[in-house]
Amino acid sequence: MKKVAIVMGSDSDLGVMTATIDRLKSFGIPFEVRVISAHRTPAAAESFSKGAEKDGFGVIIAAAGKAAHLAGVLAANTIIPVIGVPIKSSTMDGLDSLLSTVQMPKGIPVATVAIDGADNAAILAAQMLALSDSALSEKLSVFKADMAAEVEAKDKKVSEMFK
Amino acid sequence: MKKVAIVMGSDSDLGVMTATIDRLKSFGIPFEVRVISAHRTPAAAESFSKGAEKDGFGVIIAAAGKAAHLAGVLAANTIIPVIGVPIKSSTMDGLDSLLSTVQMPKGIPVATVAIDGADNAAILAAQMLALSDSALSEKLSVFKADMAAEVEAKDKKVSEMFK
Amino acid sequence: MKKVAIVMGSDSDLGVMTATIDRLKSFGIPFEVRVISAHRTPAAAESFSKGAEKDGFGVIIAAAGKAAHLAGVLAANTIIPVIGVPIKSSTMDGLDSLLSTVQMPKGIPVATVAIDGADNAAILAAQMLALSDSALSEKLSVFKADMAAEVEAKDKKVSEMFK
Amino acid sequence: MKKVAIVMGSDSDLGVMTATIDRLKSFGIPFEVRVISAHRTPAAAESFSKGAEKDGFGVIIAAAGKAAHLAGVLAANTIIPVIGVPIKSSTMDGLDSLLSTVQMPKGIPVATVAIDGADNAAILAAQMLALSDSALSEKLSVFKADMAAEVEAKDKKVSEMFK
Amino acid sequence: MKKVAIVMGSDSDLGVMTATIDRLKSFGIPFEVRVISAHRTPAAAESFSKGAEKDGFGVIIAAAGKAAHLAGVLAANTIIPVIGVPIKSSTMDGLDSLLSTVQMPKGIPVATVAIDGADNAAILAAQMLALSDSALSEKLSVFKADMAAEVEAKDKKVSEMFK
Amino acid sequence: MKKVAIVMGSDSDLGVMTATIDRLKSFGIPFEVRVISAHRTPAAAESFSKGAEKDGFGVIIAAAGKAAHLAGVLAANTIIPVIGVPIKSSTMDGLDSLLSTVQMPKGIPVATVAIDGADNAAILAAQMLALSDSALSEKLSVFKADMAAEVEAKDKKVSEMFK
Amino acid sequence: MKKVAIVMGSDSDLGVMTATIDRLKSFGIPFEVRVISAHRTPAAAESFSKGAEKDGFGVIIAAAGKAAHLAGVLAANTIIPVIGVPIKSSTMDGLDSLLSTVQMPKGIPVATVAIDGADNAAILAAQMLALSDSALSEKLSVFKADMAAEVEAKDKKVSEMFK
Amino acid sequence: MKKVAIVMGSDSDLGVMTATIDRLKSFGIPFEVRVISAHRTPAAAESFSKGAEKDGFGVIIAAAGKAAHLAGVLAANTIIPVIGVPIKSSTMDGLDSLLSTVQMPKGIPVATVAIDGADNAAILAAQMLALSDSALSEKLSVFKADMAAEVEAKDKKVSEMFK
Repeated sequence: MKKVAIVMGSDSDLGVMTATIDRLKSFGIPFEVRVISAHRTPAAAESFSKGAEKDGFGVIIAAAGKAAHLAGVLAANTIIPVIGVPIKSSTMDGLDSLLSTVQMPKGIPVATVAIDGADNAAILAAQMLALSDSALSEKLSVFKADMAAEVEAKDKKVSEMFK
Repeated sequence: MKKVAIVMGSDSDLGVMTATIDRLKSFGIPFEVRVISAHRTPAAAESFSKGAEKDGFGVIIAAAGKAAHLAGVLAANTIIPVIGVPIKSSTMDGLDSLLSTVQMPKGIPVATVAIDGADNAAILAAQMLALSDSALSEKLSVFKADMAAEVEAKDKKVSEMFK
Repeated sequence: MKKVAIVMGSDSDLGVMTATIDRLKSFGIPFEVRVISAHRTPAAAESFSKGAEKDGFGVIIAAAGKAAHLAGVLAANTIIPVIGVPIKSSTMDGLDSLLSTVQMPKGIPVATVAIDGADNAAILAAQMLALSDSALSEKLSVFKADMAAEVEAKDKKVSEMFK
Repeated sequence: MKKVAIVMGSDSDLGVMTATIDRLKSFGIPFEVRVISAHRTPAAAESFSKGAEKDGFGVIIAAAGKAAHLAGVLAANTIIPVIGVPIKSSTMDGLDSLLSTVQMPKGIPVATVAIDGADNAAILAAQMLALSDSALSEKLSVFKADMAAEVEAKDKKVSEMFK
Repeated sequence: MKKVAIVMGSDSDLGVMTATIDRLKSFGIPFEVRVISAHRTPAAAESFSKGAEKDGFGVIIAAAGKAAHLAGVLAANTIIPVIGVPIKSSTMDGLDSLLSTVQMPKGIPVATVAIDGADNAAILAAQMLALSDSALSEKLSVFKADMAAEVEAKDKKVSEMFK
Repeated sequence: MKKVAIVMGSDSDLGVMTATIDRLKSFGIPFEVRVISAHRTPAAAESFSKGAEKDGFGVIIAAAGKAAHLAGVLAANTIIPVIGVPIKSSTMDGLDSLLSTVQMPKGIPVATVAIDGADNAAILAAQMLALSDSALSEKLSVFKADMAAEVEAKDKKVSEMFK
Repeated sequence: MKKVAIVMGSDSDLGVMTATIDRLKSFGIPFEVRVISAHRTPAAAESFSKGAEKDGFGVIIAAAGKAAHLAGVLAANTIIPVIGVPIKSSTMDGLDSLLSTVQMPKGIPVATVAIDGADNAAILAAQMLALSDSALSEKLSVFKADMAAEVEAKDKKVSEMFK
Repeated sequence: MKKVAIVMGSDSDLGVMTATIDRLKSFGIPFEVRVISAHRTPAAAESFSKGAEKDGFGVIIAAAGKAAHLAGVLAANTIIPVIGVPIKSSTMDGLDSLLSTVQMPKGIPVATVAIDGADNAAILAAQMLALSDSALSEKLSVFKADMAAEVEAKDKKVSEMFK
């Protein structure tokens, strides 16, 4: 099975990105975690992304804040899908991270999820890998059914409260 | 080979989405085009998305403007990846479409590309399908090299102009 | 008397939506509370909204955050009025919820109130029902007079403070 | 049958608001059109809104741009529902009109539709009046079915184009 | 000497508006404080603003949050200058209040100061009244010199710290 | 009678500011027009604002776009009221000009009107001068009545159209 | 004399960036023009920026639109100052380009000028080079005086028009 | 060696700007710290900026919040480069400060860094001074290598954690 790379621009993003790690584990998807800065370690960004496909990665999840160039910079050097997670920092409420991640120019897409959307990044990665992995596909169906069941249970509980 | 579905919320989006169609054609990826409105034809949205996987689709590209619910509504009923293209309409410069598409709640991701990013949606779909299709993977590498060559040619031309 | 449905996308919205419940109670308007997610329980969203009119509901109040599709998705399947309450979440200060709720395309309106405007949603629902209920209409007039009296009392108190 | 009042802050809004007039006509809903400025003719705003219920109006649709106070000012003096249509003017892309219309304080709701959402304002008014008018209710169901049919026809045409 | 009216839409604005009161006191300008809501007590808003000039007011300072209509509504009924103070509330970081206050249509200006700019509202009122009051004009000059002296003292202190 | 100074940051603002000139003329208020740049002719900005009061000016109207510092810079050197007109330029839809003009720090207010609100700037200046000029005050009352009459005429015309 | 590099992400930026070229010529500063894409030709971006200092460049001016990573990516590989020019594209009015350029994380600054601020980028580059070039410093003083004279001439002309 | 001036609009900015001071110290760059307000001490702003070059300053770093005019006002009177640090204040999340600093009109650039980007301001100043100071240039290279090493260490640590 292809691995997922979780790359974050700073180790301060680890708090948010734990949700990605936990979700990938729950699906049994192999992954590696890296701290690579598009600006402070550009050589690592280049060598990692250039080699990602050969190193057995199927999807890269890149998390960064502010002028979040990381996802785009990795996408420049690989043809495997790159998922961008805009991280909210102390100013601009995440809008800067979102626009810097999603507004990619023609030719180099980044599959962007919500600001701080670490959990969804893992699910999206699973959906991509499941295209050729029917066991994972099954797990996603179960996950979807479980989510529905959870909401239904809450619905039951809350609607009872006000009957 | 799995097909790509291009679903647009209105036939007025066809102008922008032609770039998706052209790009998929250039990669030789089979596709179908649909006009389905999350709000005006919700039954079609449901039946299409529920059956998409069985009908041979591997990726859905959903394009919509304003309160762009289409991508999210389709993603609710399938586990294949849904790519969202926020379409710029006559007010708010595309910000409403972008936020409505990308800010998905936990559990149901939409892989969002830039506002009016129709071309990149096709490339992203190709990247997903290429995870299990080495011929397509090769086409993506060629495409990437061609893009680079095109920019290099412009670089040469422009830098000569000002020598 | 027709009932009001209060539908929230997540039970975490209950804190904000208590104001809706309290206000409806104060008007003596019958209501039910549901937790239905446009994305996690789309089938419930569909069956609820399709049956709402026949089940005796006159108005639906839908509360959701981020890419808030709930109100629009319910409105797609019913002709009774749907009031949308955009819920502020942890990023974007409620702007994403507001635009996702209010910027509905032609044909399917959502009557949107302020971000976190749970109290006003109940009052608006009462105003709609009062169109054919003179007793409720009278209650609204009293409510309006009471609000005025309350502000007048504060005006008196504050203006005295600085005399 | 109760009438709908279409009140616009300036006769320059008539271009956008023609969609409201046409839609109300198509439903056979009686209406009157007024030009009343919250700021330039406040006395007319007050007397109109105070008398609206007695004058046979069931719903007020208020359209204004920039610091769009009109809907709120009318709502202050009546208990019938007020629908606000934020009109896009030459600066700020409609955001000023939207926020001025929708962000109403506790106690006085305005049922806000999309920026320039004149058509939806009429549909929403019809939905409100249909709560006690089964013939109108039936017309809304037909309208909804027609809209669906129209989208389905476009779907058929577009999907054929690319087969 | 003409009085200044400080009108706030809610007594919850008193915390911010204390700065206005304190500054007016420091200039010896007579003032009155009122709590008047454009939406909850529109009659009071009308009667106050219509009579303001005759009641001896020279300037009105109006403070309100969210869809802040108060300043505009008062300005509609008087020809004395109205200063608007947009109050930051719990969503949208004050942008809604600012746009609702400043974006007034042709014919009815509101002299808008910064979000939560209570102190500056008092100074601006003083500047207006000083146009025909040389003693007050003198006080403003002294105030300006004092402010400069205060900054100069801080400059001296801070620049010494790092010598 | 005190004069009004119309200061613009660039002669390209003259198109918008003609409305100020015309309105002042209609009130018979003496005025002078200047082109002074806070950044390109700072010495002129300083000498003009320092001398404005002595040179017989009662109010300064300052119009500028982008990072619109002009109003603030003039206000720094005078105690007469400064009215700021944020001019919309080719990017950011006037938001940069508005925030740069209105968000003044404590101590130095700028009376800000709407983006491109040239007409209202003149009316606000007239309101300030009318505080000690009963003839001008009378003209403002007539102007207000004329505006109302104009809207009433339009109201009559439009309401007839749809009877 | 050190050269200035003008690097643009696309040859479509040449229209805006001509102002940079013209201004550098007027100062007699040697320059080269390149088309390098952070995403499409990342290798060129790396090799250019790594070698820039040795190749005789003193300043890099980087112009890009949308998710404008170019300036940041070049800055990652050099210690010479990088000036970023955010280019306005067809959506978001330049806000995406601005935030992507200016909101750089700790350690790697980009000296950002206004959206489409091509002329100012050249002036800023000249100011940097003038730190060790008194002839250029003199040219900048003359340029500043000329600008002032130009504004003064316009001031004279416009103020005469309305005398 | 030329000095760097750190000018802040208020001593309340000292908390943020300590990062600038510390970084300049670490590079051994001489500096002075001043508190000068564009609005409260305009004379100081003028005299400081006019004399800055002769007083031995090579670069000015100006930090201010809200309608942040300081950097622009200083730039108006000098030809040495001015770096602007937009300071986030209590409203608008720093957007007002950013736009007021960066959107400078033609002729007078401000080299703007990120909101609260005090550290980067110092690094940018060092880059400018290093253009003619090879020892400082060397320090910048070492600093860049150290940053990379720091990120690499974190990368190692984090990637080990999840192996």
